[in-house]
Amino acid sequence: MAKELTPREENYSQWYNDLVIKADLAENSAVRGCMVIKPYGYAIWEKIQSILDGMFKKTGHSNAYFPLFIPKSFFSKEAAHVEGFAKECAIVTHYRLKNDENGKGIVVDETAKLEEELIIRPTSETIIWNTYKNWIQSYRDLPILVNQWANVVRWEMRTRLFLRTAEFLWQEGHTAHATEAEALEETSKIINLYADFAENHMAMPVIKGRKTESERFAGALDTYAIEALMQDGKALQSGTSHFLGQNFARAFDVQFTSKEGNLEYVWATSWGVSTRLMGALIMAHSDDNGLVLPPRLAPLQVVIVPIYKSQEEFTRISQAALKIKAELEGGGLSVKYDDRDTHKPGWKFSEYEMKGVPVRIAIGPRDLDNNTVEVARRDTLEKKIVSRDMVNDIVIGLMEEIQQSIFRKALDLRRDNTYKVDDWDEFREIMDKKPGFVLAHWDGTAETELKIKEETKATIRCIPFDAEVEEGKCIYTGKPSEKRVLFAIAY
Amino acid sequence: MAKELTPREENYSQWYNDLVIKADLAENSAVRGCMVIKPYGYAIWEKIQSILDGMFKKTGHSNAYFPLFIPKSFFSKEAAHVEGFAKECAIVTHYRLKNDENGKGIVVDETAKLEEELIIRPTSETIIWNTYKNWIQSYRDLPILVNQWANVVRWEMRTRLFLRTAEFLWQEGHTAHATEAEALEETSKIINLYADFAENHMAMPVIKGRKTESERFAGALDTYAIEALMQDGKALQSGTSHFLGQNFARAFDVQFTSKEGNLEYVWATSWGVSTRLMGALIMAHSDDNGLVLPPRLAPLQVVIVPIYKSQEEFTRISQAALKIKAELEGGGLSVKYDDRDTHKPGWKFSEYEMKGVPVRIAIGPRDLDNNTVEVARRDTLEKKIVSRDMVNDIVIGLMEEIQQSIFRKALDLRRDNTYKVDDWDEFREIMDKKPGFVLAHWDGTAETELKIKEETKATIRCIPFDAEVEEGKCIYTGKPSEKRVLFAIAY
Repeated sequence: MAKELTPREENYSQWYNDLVIKADLAENSAVRGCMVIKPYGYAIWEKIQSILDGMFKKTGHSNAYFPLFIPKSFFSKEAAHVEGFAKECAIVTHYRLKNDENGKGIVVDETAKLEEELIIRPTSETIIWNTYKNWIQSYRDLPILVNQWANVVRWEMRTRLFLRTAEFLWQEGHTAHATEAEALEETSKIINLYADFAENHMAMPVIKGRKTESERFAGALDTYAIEALMQDGKALQSGTSHFLGQNFARAFDVQFTSKEGNLEYVWATSWGVSTRLMGALIMAHSDDNGLVLPPRLAPLQVVIVPIYKSQEEFTRISQAALKIKAELEGGGLSVKYDDRDTHKPGWKFSEYEMKGVPVRIAIGPRDLDNNTVEVARRDTLEKKIVSRDMVNDIVIGLMEEIQQSIFRKALDLRRDNTYKVDDWDEFREIMDKKPGFVLAHWDGTAETELKIKEETKATIRCIPFDAEVEEGKCIYTGKPSEKRVLFAIAY
Repeated sequence: MAKELTPREENYSQWYNDLVIKADLAENSAVRGCMVIKPYGYAIWEKIQSILDGMFKKTGHSNAYFPLFIPKSFFSKEAAHVEGFAKECAIVTHYRLKNDENGKGIVVDETAKLEEELIIRPTSETIIWNTYKNWIQSYRDLPILVNQWANVVRWEMRTRLFLRTAEFLWQEGHTAHATEAEALEETSKIINLYADFAENHMAMPVIKGRKTESERFAGALDTYAIEALMQDGKALQSGTSHFLGQNFARAFDVQFTSKEGNLEYVWATSWGVSTRLMGALIMAHSDDNGLVLPPRLAPLQVVIVPIYKSQEEFTRISQAALKIKAELEGGGLSVKYDDRDTHKPGWKFSEYEMKGVPVRIAIGPRDLDNNTVEVARRDTLEKKIVSRDMVNDIVIGLMEEIQQSIFRKALDLRRDNTYKVDDWDEFREIMDKKPGFVLAHWDGTAETELKIKEETKATIRCIPFDAEVEEGKCIYTGKPSEKRVLFAIAY
């Protein structure tokens, strides 16, 4: 029996939850707010990791690993930073369990209390800058271009699979530079790298820009972000790159001797993307039949399903199928021949639609006679009978075509849901009825930003890098403004 | 100036500590017992990960991710398991910090106390079997062959970089099977996979065998291990594979309907290797000049160092060097041309010796005239002048030769330090003066095992799978025994 999703039109949020479960991507664990990433979901994450890791290395970064624990005192050294994270962190206070003396089972051994509490890292700037202190003496030790793949914990009260979980997986880059200019260049380089990954691998168009002060990372002087529009008209922040100035170097007293012999504080950046990207990827392209994956991130790119009645038919079809599989694998594709006799072809079709396998090939007895196969693409659900001899070329071509096509579709969706608005009533109406990206003028104050948020739930997602300079009036206060910023209701 | 190591003869333990620091592999962090794995050390770990991950996938395993936290009540469900881990675990009790009302800075918010404490996973059997409960109904859902790459925490009191740290990185496989035979087969398959990896990639010979009851994993019916002999004559347990029987299935009530329609408990295995392998790798081959790495795990396999006086010489040498680099890279090798003018050739030579780069190529002006280069191998420190036209073949050949040669050397060391002993005084003498692997008879009781440990520090590392059946008498009690077991002083 086919698994069914709640249609997007009926309840978008339920559709997402259904999809994550039914496509076998992840599930809630027994631990509040923490998820289990299931093998199929994790295989997609591994693809994301492997491509990003290659991009980081190509741009000169190396991986390293820093402790899970952050002493409370470190955490407190950068004022804005602790302010931003103190309210949502997991705290280790003891290091031993024991049998309760009154027979109540296993309890915390109160004699094993830590002198100083340890925070599970919500992000690693503090422990890393405390370490860099020993690595950096001279300009010759710079730059340091280090990345870490790790788990982090933020004690969120309202969680959703992939989008917001108490524990999540991510990468966090932490770089140290001799000059402000170099650190700023790194910050830009990485946001461009993230945008490249989002658009060319996830097939998800993004807008690059700078965050307003109130939306900045706690401890940063500037935060750059990429923002994507989901099918429900909400924005999803998909990656951030922070220019930290000398804040952490000052907090941890990290100075270096410059070429000129002066003692100076080191300049810093940090940047990250997380398993939240999985949420973005799921929502960017999927439909009421299930997941739609860009071929470049699909763990399984082609599935071959045999359609037969007799054992003799099955044998002949299997021969043909295994030959096609070998050919496609020779072309670098990941292919499965699903010869299970425990499930009917129709069941398999639905299953692979649910899981977003980009191309499905079906072979029946008539195909053998006619030297054909049926090729179906997941994104459009189109089916075609094609000549057996052309299968390889057609399927390899489809990989690129689907990759481009779902990107264009997402781009069209964004275009159709992006509005230039100059009127407050229209702004409110859009945010209330058919939300999307709204480009509007803003007077540059945190006060106005907050009021707009209170009245419409919309926040400034970013000040786009490519915003044109034009004279305008703030959508809310009417005060002068020189460029439009990007508003949306955010995930 | 060359960095110097304490010689092994003088102080083996200090030599190891020096080496880990001076080869830039890892360092102690500000958090008690937790290490920072530095980029060069992490690059070796990435090689280990990538090869093992490929081997797991080839044998049908998939990766997934389970929560960092384990509710205290889960932990208590398997009696032997909690007994084994309760005394060394990090416990999360609160989820919020706040500003102290008396101005004492940031403190734990006592109102944010968890109802049930969370344990940072020391291993994940309990949270995983609680999850599998929902994944398994029928024999059709089996086997489950899942692996996880993760960090774990065991609150060890005495720690050493890589060998024993409070937090470490590892992989943990957790499989579920319909039959005892299948689970036992998996347990064996994995210990063989680990031995294959140790011998053919780490170039480190290992002995495979079964643990005695007292050395078993907490909660296992049987533990298989691979044991390696270090240069100081101590044994290092390098990987374990556990047959868990139905213990965890019973503890978490995981039953399935068999083909025959019966409700049965699921059979389990778990298995892991950790960053401890880094310690084994470092100790297996290195010498008083620094690290010696097997080419298959060396992040950098060849380094080219120019030797020049004038800028004109440097230009000509660089041309030749870059051509050789390109050729070697074409052959799949990882090559660096170190053209820094901030360090002298002699300094660079010591540096790459310290870091264990398998092959060094030096090019001077005379080499250009003679159409030669100097090739030095790290393991033997031999240097040879070879014809420029032969460099590629020679270096590619050296990769395989070094890999084999250091394995043989380790094998010889083990042979020379493995003793068949039938006399208790001799046993004590060996453990006291020149420890190594001792094959001796044992009466099979935990009592004798403990007494031998108390008197000599030696433990039974394993009962080798290939132990010959022979009549003998227990080395300690004189009671009858039918095969020799492997004793050693362990890391």
